[in-house]
Amino acid sequence: MRMYDIIKKKRDGSELTSEEIEFFVNGYVRGTIPDYQVSALLMAIFFRGMNQRETFDLTMSMARSGEILDLSPIEGIKVDKHSTGGVGDKTTLVVLPIIAAFGVKVPKMSGRGLGHTGGTIDKLESIPGMRTELTRGEFFQVVKKVGFSIVSQSGNLVPADKKIYALRDTTATVDSIPLIASSIVSKKLAGGADAIIFDVKVGSGAFLKDTEQAQELACLMIDILKRSGKLSRAVLSDMNQPLGRMVGNSLEVIEAVETLKGNGPEDLTKLCIRLCHEILNLVGMNVTEEQIKDEIVSGRAVERFAEFIEMQGGDPRIIDDYRLLPVSRKVVEVRSVRPGYVDRIDTEAIGIASVVLGAGRSRKEDSIDPSVGIEVLKKIGDYVHEDEPIVRIYVSEKSDVDLAISLIHNAYGIVDHKVGFREIVLGVIE
Amino acid sequence: MRMYDIIKKKRDGSELTSEEIEFFVNGYVRGTIPDYQVSALLMAIFFRGMNQRETFDLTMSMARSGEILDLSPIEGIKVDKHSTGGVGDKTTLVVLPIIAAFGVKVPKMSGRGLGHTGGTIDKLESIPGMRTELTRGEFFQVVKKVGFSIVSQSGNLVPADKKIYALRDTTATVDSIPLIASSIVSKKLAGGADAIIFDVKVGSGAFLKDTEQAQELACLMIDILKRSGKLSRAVLSDMNQPLGRMVGNSLEVIEAVETLKGNGPEDLTKLCIRLCHEILNLVGMNVTEEQIKDEIVSGRAVERFAEFIEMQGGDPRIIDDYRLLPVSRKVVEVRSVRPGYVDRIDTEAIGIASVVLGAGRSRKEDSIDPSVGIEVLKKIGDYVHEDEPIVRIYVSEKSDVDLAISLIHNAYGIVDHKVGFREIVLGVIE
Repeated sequence: MRMYDIIKKKRDGSELTSEEIEFFVNGYVRGTIPDYQVSALLMAIFFRGMNQRETFDLTMSMARSGEILDLSPIEGIKVDKHSTGGVGDKTTLVVLPIIAAFGVKVPKMSGRGLGHTGGTIDKLESIPGMRTELTRGEFFQVVKKVGFSIVSQSGNLVPADKKIYALRDTTATVDSIPLIASSIVSKKLAGGADAIIFDVKVGSGAFLKDTEQAQELACLMIDILKRSGKLSRAVLSDMNQPLGRMVGNSLEVIEAVETLKGNGPEDLTKLCIRLCHEILNLVGMNVTEEQIKDEIVSGRAVERFAEFIEMQGGDPRIIDDYRLLPVSRKVVEVRSVRPGYVDRIDTEAIGIASVVLGAGRSRKEDSIDPSVGIEVLKKIGDYVHEDEPIVRIYVSEKSDVDLAISLIHNAYGIVDHKVGFREIVLGVIE
Repeated sequence: MRMYDIIKKKRDGSELTSEEIEFFVNGYVRGTIPDYQVSALLMAIFFRGMNQRETFDLTMSMARSGEILDLSPIEGIKVDKHSTGGVGDKTTLVVLPIIAAFGVKVPKMSGRGLGHTGGTIDKLESIPGMRTELTRGEFFQVVKKVGFSIVSQSGNLVPADKKIYALRDTTATVDSIPLIASSIVSKKLAGGADAIIFDVKVGSGAFLKDTEQAQELACLMIDILKRSGKLSRAVLSDMNQPLGRMVGNSLEVIEAVETLKGNGPEDLTKLCIRLCHEILNLVGMNVTEEQIKDEIVSGRAVERFAEFIEMQGGDPRIIDDYRLLPVSRKVVEVRSVRPGYVDRIDTEAIGIASVVLGAGRSRKEDSIDPSVGIEVLKKIGDYVHEDEPIVRIYVSEKSDVDLAISLIHNAYGIVDHKVGFREIVLGVIE
C-alpha cells in the first residue's frame, strides 16, 4: 500500500477502504508517512468529503492510536459531555453536579481555552487550591465519591488527533465536517465512557455559523458512536450571544454556582436542565425536567459541586463567599451610544474582547488572568437607553481596555424596532 | 502575509495576487515555508485551478528563483524546443540540425528519461565518446559553430521547480494543467531563448490522453510566454502509437540519422518537417516545407549533426557506420497470435516494455542500457498475418524478456475490420 495511491484515490472522489485509512493514520503517527503527504490528503478530504463509513473508520483508527481509558473500576454507566465551544459556556460546571446527584457517573477530561472560546480547566483553576491534574487513581476516587470529576487531558490519548489537528490548523483544513467529527469523537472514545451527550453550538460565537452544518456534524458524530456501540445524543444550542451573562474564569464559576443554587440566568438554566434531561433519558432514567429543577432547589447539586472542589484540593467556601475568588475590582462600563433594541451581538468579537482583557489565550503558551472578564448586561431583545451600560468589563493592568471596548461597541447591533428574544435550545438529535 | 491565509484563499476559490504567489514560491525555496503547507496549497490548486494571470505569475516567480541563462554571447534569435514526452520521440535529434542548417541558433538543455518516456540526453550518450556535460563556454562555442548544441540541464536553474515538482510527485498533484504549464515554461524561461516551440503529445503514450487537455495546456503555455515577451507556438501531435519505429537509445539515434538522410519513417519525417516549418515561420523566416525537404536531401542537415557529434567529443563516423553504435545482436520477435488489422497500441505499455528491457529507468538512480530496445514492425492500420512478427525486441542478459513480450502482446489490439492510418500532426496553436 502506498500513501500516494491513497491521496490520488481520495483526490479523484473514491471511497477509501478501512485498511487504507488505518494505513495512513498509523503511518503518520509512527512517522513513516510525512506531513506533506498527509496535508495533501486532508485537503483532498476537504474537497471530496468522506462518507459515514469512512469517517467511522478514521475515528476508530485515531482512537486506537493511543491509550483508551479503562473506566471499569468505576461501577455503573459512565457519561461524557462535549461542547463544541462557545462564549460564556460554563454548562459543564452546572450539568455534572446535577446528573451526579441523580447517581450518574461522569469522569470528565477537559481542555484549556484557545482563541475566543474558554476552557473548563481554566475556569476551575480560578478556584484557590484547585487541582486539575490528578493521578488516574485520584481521578477515579473522586468520581466514585462525588459522582463526577473534571481533570486536564493527560496521558497518551489519541496521539493521531494531536498530530493531525496540528497539521490541519496550519493548512486550512480544519473546516471539514468529517475531520471535525473524527477529531471530537476519537477523543470521546478514548475517554472510555458509555454514553456521550453533545452540546453543538450554532451562531456568531460558535465555529459553526449555520444550523444545517451543526445538524450535519451532530448526525455524523452520533452515527460514529452508534457504530461503535455507544449511546449518544446531541442538543443544538444557540450561540448568537454569550451564554448567560458572564464571560471570564472566576466570573463564570460564580455564575455556575448561582445556577446550581437556582438563581442562574434563564438561558443558561434552561440549557443545563435540558442537557441533564437528555443525559438522564439517554441512560434510561425516566426523569422529568421538574424533577431536575427540584434537585437544584433541594441544594443537593450545589453540595456535590462543593464536595468536588474539596476533593480536588480547592476551597469549597467559595460556594458561599465569592470574595474568595479572584475577581478584579477595577470595573469599566461600556455604554450604548444610541437607544434601541439589541438586534445582534457578534459573539466571537465578545470572546476576542475577553482574550484582549486577559481572560483567554491567543496562543497555547499564553497565560490567563482569572480575575478579568465581561459581564453582559444587555442581550438580544433587550431595550437599552442612550448612554445606558450594555456591558461591564473587569480589567487588569495588562488588559487592552480600549481595544476591548471598541470590539464590544462594534459587536452590538442596536435597532429602533422591537426584537424578539432568542430560544436557547434549537433542537435535539438522537 | 501568512501562508495559512494563502492556502485558505485558494481553497475557497479566490484568485491569488502576484505578491501572494511570489511569497509562497520564495518562502518555499528559502525553506521558511514547510512542505506540508505547500502540498496543501498544491492540492487546493488542483481542485480550484489558476487563471492565466496567476499561472503567469507562478511561472515568473519560479523562473526567477534561480539563474536565468544569458544567451547574449550568441548572436541572432535563439530558439528552444520542448516535447511533453512520448515513446520513440527522437524529433529533437532531427529538428535541431535542420533548423541550424537554416541559420537558426538552438542552445538546448535537455533531460534524461524517467518512466515510460525516453530522454534526449540518454539517446545522445549511446554515441561513443559523446559528452553532454559542457561548460557554459563550450556550450556557447558549439552553438556558434554548429548552430545548435544539446547539453544536460545543469547549474541552479529553477530551484523552485525542482522542489515543487518533487513534492507534486509524491502528493498526487502532478495532473494539474496550470502546475504543468508553470513547471515547463519556467524552465524554458530560465533557458533564455527568444522563441519556444512546443510539441504537445496526445494519446495513450503521452501524459495527456485527450486533445482538449492538450489544447488547454498548449494555449496556457503560449499565453505565459507571450506575456513575458517571447515568441511561441505549439504543434499537437499524435502519441497513440510510438513515433517512428524505434524505441531505445542507439536504435533511436540510428532512426534519427536515417530521417536526416531522407530515409526516415513517414510519421516521424512529417512531424519533424512540420516542427521545422513552424519554428522557421515563428522567427520570421518564410521557408516552405519543400525547401526543408530540399535541405534534408542536400545532406546539409545530417552534416550539421555530424559536426555537433564531433564537437561534443563523439564519434561522427556513426553517421555512416551504425555498427559503431551499441546495438544488441540478441533479437527476439514478438508475433501476432491472430490475423487482422492493428486497431490500437497501448503506447505507454510499449514504453514500459522498453524500460523492462533496460532502455529506460523506473527510478532516477537506475542505469540504462543503450543497446536494447524495441522495433515496431506493425503500426495502427497495418495488416498482420497470424504468427507474423509485430515487434522485434533487442535484449540484453538483464532484460526481463517475458514481461516485455507479455506487455507488448497486451498492448496490441487487432481487429477483423480495416482500420485507417493515423495522422501524426493534429493541429498547430499560435
